Amino acid sequence: MPESAAGALGPGPEFDAIRVLLERWGPRAVGIGDDATIVRVPRGDALVASVDTAIEGRHFRTNWITPREIGYRAVTAALSDLAAMAAQPLGVLLAIAIPNDRQNILADIADGVGDAVDAAQTHILGGNVSSADQLSLTTTVLGAAFSPLRRDGLRPGDQLYVTGRLGGPGAAVAAWRQGTTPQVEHRARFSHPTARIREARWLADRGAVAAIDISDGLAADAEHLALASAVGIDVDLALVPLVAGVADVVAAASSGEEYELLVGSRTALDSAEFERAFDLPLTHIGRVTSCDDGILFRRGSERVAKPSGYDHLSP
Amino acid sequence: MPESAAGALGPGPEFDAIRVLLERWGPRAVGIGDDATIVRVPRGDALVASVDTAIEGRHFRTNWITPREIGYRAVTAALSDLAAMAAQPLGVLLAIAIPNDRQNILADIADGVGDAVDAAQTHILGGNVSSADQLSLTTTVLGAAFSPLRRDGLRPGDQLYVTGRLGGPGAAVAAWRQGTTPQVEHRARFSHPTARIREARWLADRGAVAAIDISDGLAADAEHLALASAVGIDVDLALVPLVAGVADVVAAASSGEEYELLVGSRTALDSAEFERAFDLPLTHIGRVTSCDDGILFRRGSERVAKPSGYDHLSP
Repeated sequence: MPESAAGALGPGPEFDAIRVLLERWGPRAVGIGDDATIVRVPRGDALVASVDTAIEGRHFRTNWITPREIGYRAVTAALSDLAAMAAQPLGVLLAIAIPNDRQNILADIADGVGDAVDAAQTHILGGNVSSADQLSLTTTVLGAAFSPLRRDGLRPGDQLYVTGRLGGPGAAVAAWRQGTTPQVEHRARFSHPTARIREARWLADRGAVAAIDISDGLAADAEHLALASAVGIDVDLALVPLVAGVADVVAAASSGEEYELLVGSRTALDSAEFERAFDLPLTHIGRVTSCDDGILFRRGSERVAKPSGYDHLSP
Repeated sequence: MPESAAGALGPGPEFDAIRVLLERWGPRAVGIGDDATIVRVPRGDALVASVDTAIEGRHFRTNWITPREIGYRAVTAALSDLAAMAAQPLGVLLAIAIPNDRQNILADIADGVGDAVDAAQTHILGGNVSSADQLSLTTTVLGAAFSPLRRDGLRPGDQLYVTGRLGGPGAAVAAWRQGTTPQVEHRARFSHPTARIREARWLADRGAVAAIDISDGLAADAEHLALASAVGIDVDLALVPLVAGVADVVAAASSGEEYELLVGSRTALDSAEFERAFDLPLTHIGRVTSCDDGILFRRGSERVAKPSGYDHLSP
């Protein structure tokens, strides 16, 4: 299923679906019309690429969020992986699988995808649409970075920081699962995350040496960073800022799909300057220790068991 | 769902699935372990990218081909889009959606993916695994080309060529749909296509100015080329080489998922030299005319109605 420009599309429902997408996207879709899209990577930069899938019933439900929010959230979650590398987006490719009897929501999904690429100041470079039993969006993001931030950059003595306030998506999902309506801010944190792209570049420019986006929960992702870097970490969960209305920091540290950044920095970061620039907290939550010290989560002086991670395949 | 190196994976079924993949792939998986993969594009080359989805019940059935063939075919079909641009593969990213109760076929699918990247002399750069109701593989291919072949390069007077012999996949699917067993060669053409990557670079080096891979059927894809280039075409279907056991050239010209190349060339191509190099026919099947002459399909001197295209969304 090649990408196709609207002017050169044949007949049939698959091409009708692509026409819907291209009509909604307008100039936000660029370079479409060949079997593959052509992208110029800035000279000297490395290409950074990642793929992420959002599946109905697993990552979202249509009685939780709107089709437009589904499109926005799926693409933003994928762009968040570029933020974790401090990469500048070059564009996205989108594969949509959609049941035949739900083609009526395709235009709204497309608008949400458009919102997401606008928010990240990037473009849609290609994609395809397939008929399927279950709605899903698979987004490939392409970015460029001269010196990408990696997970394995931590050394003992580095300081750990987190952006934003955690716990919102977890609280929203818990409310939906209990059959109640989530608080407005919790719902918004689930339905309308922000890929911290500009924030990541600010951090990389000021001493960040490793980063990860919090998709599996702060605790699980902190452990991923530590394992990749072969170091220990000492994180004080009492320092982690929470969204208003969330009280349980251990639950918040297990809350997946946050799309905030956990970064390690060799130098102290100026949280006040960060907050002025982005209207977002940047909070010191711990430090990197030696491998022998292991993974330590505390609440003040009280040690806490490792909060469980967020596993998308768990029932 | 970030990509993760086996050594830094947490617990849980999602990470178990990734461990299965990494174990099967071994050194064929490179650069995995960060939120995104880092790729160097050769200096001066453009990046070429495409995404393709293979869904059970739509693009394949598990009572037609084996799990290993499913993995091979999905990735090869995506790589074929790089061949259509005469691009050299840099690697693939793979998103697998798989029902929980069918995780037992994941290792075989992974082996087929490994076969496909070996055949194309490339690597697996990243991916993810999600639980889903329906089995699907979404493959993003990344390639590099100094001067990618595009669809819009045709001019009146160019000559049209096709690689290989057509009709095999269509005959295999027709047999399965009738509840019979396809001929061995027809089945192999469906289950084990080849991405014509080296062939495309040979053609681009010798005068090819536009290309498309035949995923929607020769006739439909010839029309895509003509529309993208704003030219007419005159194709003699009687010249199209068919796989042994296929007699109906009109059906063969509607046969999708061939993954052969249709190319336009400004100069005459040496079919004998091509066949010696690749053990594959390269056949002159028509010429490019002016836009006013329109799209013409003939069988010798007899005009034939435009063979229908292959639409993946049709029932």
